[in-house]
Amino acid sequence: MSNSSGLSIIPIQNFPLLETPCELGPLVVEALKKNNLSPQSGDVLVVAHKIISKAEGAVVDLDQVKPSANAIELAKRTDKDPALVEVILQQSKKIVREVHGVLICENHLGLICANAGVDRSNAGAHQAVMLPQDPDHSARQLHQALHQAFDVNLPILVADTHGRPWREGAVGICIGIAGMDPFLDYRGTQDLYDYEMQTEIECVADELCAAATLVMGQGNEGVPLALIRGLKVTHQESSSELLLRDPNRDLFR
Amino acid sequence: MSNSSGLSIIPIQNFPLLETPCELGPLVVEALKKNNLSPQSGDVLVVAHKIISKAEGAVVDLDQVKPSANAIELAKRTDKDPALVEVILQQSKKIVREVHGVLICENHLGLICANAGVDRSNAGAHQAVMLPQDPDHSARQLHQALHQAFDVNLPILVADTHGRPWREGAVGICIGIAGMDPFLDYRGTQDLYDYEMQTEIECVADELCAAATLVMGQGNEGVPLALIRGLKVTHQESSSELLLRDPNRDLFR
Repeated sequence: MSNSSGLSIIPIQNFPLLETPCELGPLVVEALKKNNLSPQSGDVLVVAHKIISKAEGAVVDLDQVKPSANAIELAKRTDKDPALVEVILQQSKKIVREVHGVLICENHLGLICANAGVDRSNAGAHQAVMLPQDPDHSARQLHQALHQAFDVNLPILVADTHGRPWREGAVGICIGIAGMDPFLDYRGTQDLYDYEMQTEIECVADELCAAATLVMGQGNEGVPLALIRGLKVTHQESSSELLLRDPNRDLFR
Repeated sequence: MSNSSGLSIIPIQNFPLLETPCELGPLVVEALKKNNLSPQSGDVLVVAHKIISKAEGAVVDLDQVKPSANAIELAKRTDKDPALVEVILQQSKKIVREVHGVLICENHLGLICANAGVDRSNAGAHQAVMLPQDPDHSARQLHQALHQAFDVNLPILVADTHGRPWREGAVGICIGIAGMDPFLDYRGTQDLYDYEMQTEIECVADELCAAATLVMGQGNEGVPLALIRGLKVTHQESSSELLLRDPNRDLFR
């Protein structure tokens, strides 16, 4: 997947704090230039979803939210803020699990995650940040803006940090994609002993977002952009729907 | 998590193919030297479990395995090789899910994964590679061998590639650890807007193994070692048990 000298995961420093909706492409271009980074073939740009959500205005003032009776009831059962639960319900197709303090939802995109991805951290006071309405569309827009600015095909991955069954701690995963194949498919290739590998499909997009999350951090030191250099990327149109397992083939819902 | 110049994920080339049990430490030291890599403070070494399994003889000749009646029955239901299923059962505490072609097990370490981690790829003809008996112990042994050779504290992560619920494709995760804190804990820190972050614990160990898997590849081009450079590592004694969610707090078993 990489050339022999390996990969670099480069954090893009000093990205401005977004307070109001804005056009993200020019800000990303400027940030790359200020970091003296000229994207080149084989690079991939990982973007924390939060700056996309904020640029697109996917932020809600919880003081303005009127929780439904359903949300109030669910908030009581899970010990959460009723206004926050109302927003979570609006973002969800289905509640997958609920217990005290935890609400695992399938969001409008089909992603299964805590609180349907609605997050109070790094939002303003009494605000919550939602996931972008269509992260693939957001990724494609950035892909185009960067192509115009740098004349290079720079795949975009939109990252969020999600918990998982069975394992402690959250990891970066890909929730939006433009310009690259998210998978590396080993099926049909021969292994070291000529036993044909049958089941191995590697989710490169999630691994890249996990790698980028290592340099992004959270909280005060948040860095919302990371450039990954040194991949052998397969450039192609793509969709984050490919990353979601068909519910009929999923044993854990 | 990283310094401002970011991370490097460096594949260690030309590691020898292991055919028989052997002492792994000297081979890893030699491979690092041949790649002109002198481990330094802040480095982490990710090791594909397969070379540990092979060095420790955790390889089984399927022709020598006599499947139990139970294994034969389960093999029929899941359309698998009875000898392979026998080995899987021997490695498992519990079958978590079984359907045609898929067997999700909790292995003797408490890891939940397909086939209890028993793998026919990159093993010899009619052989299967099991997970190491005690990957933390293996990691600690390597940690000591590298400290002796290079006089540096080089944390070791043992990686395997696992599928996940809800998402397509497998990703690298950590199944053994020595010498570092596997988590980055944001609880109690202040975010950009002084809203206290309550739930965020990042599983750095899994993210590092995912990043390393990007350069390791599989099949013919397999590279079983990757050095990660540029982290702010918290050196400490550790255990991969920390990565396993307590079954009582797990909503997806």
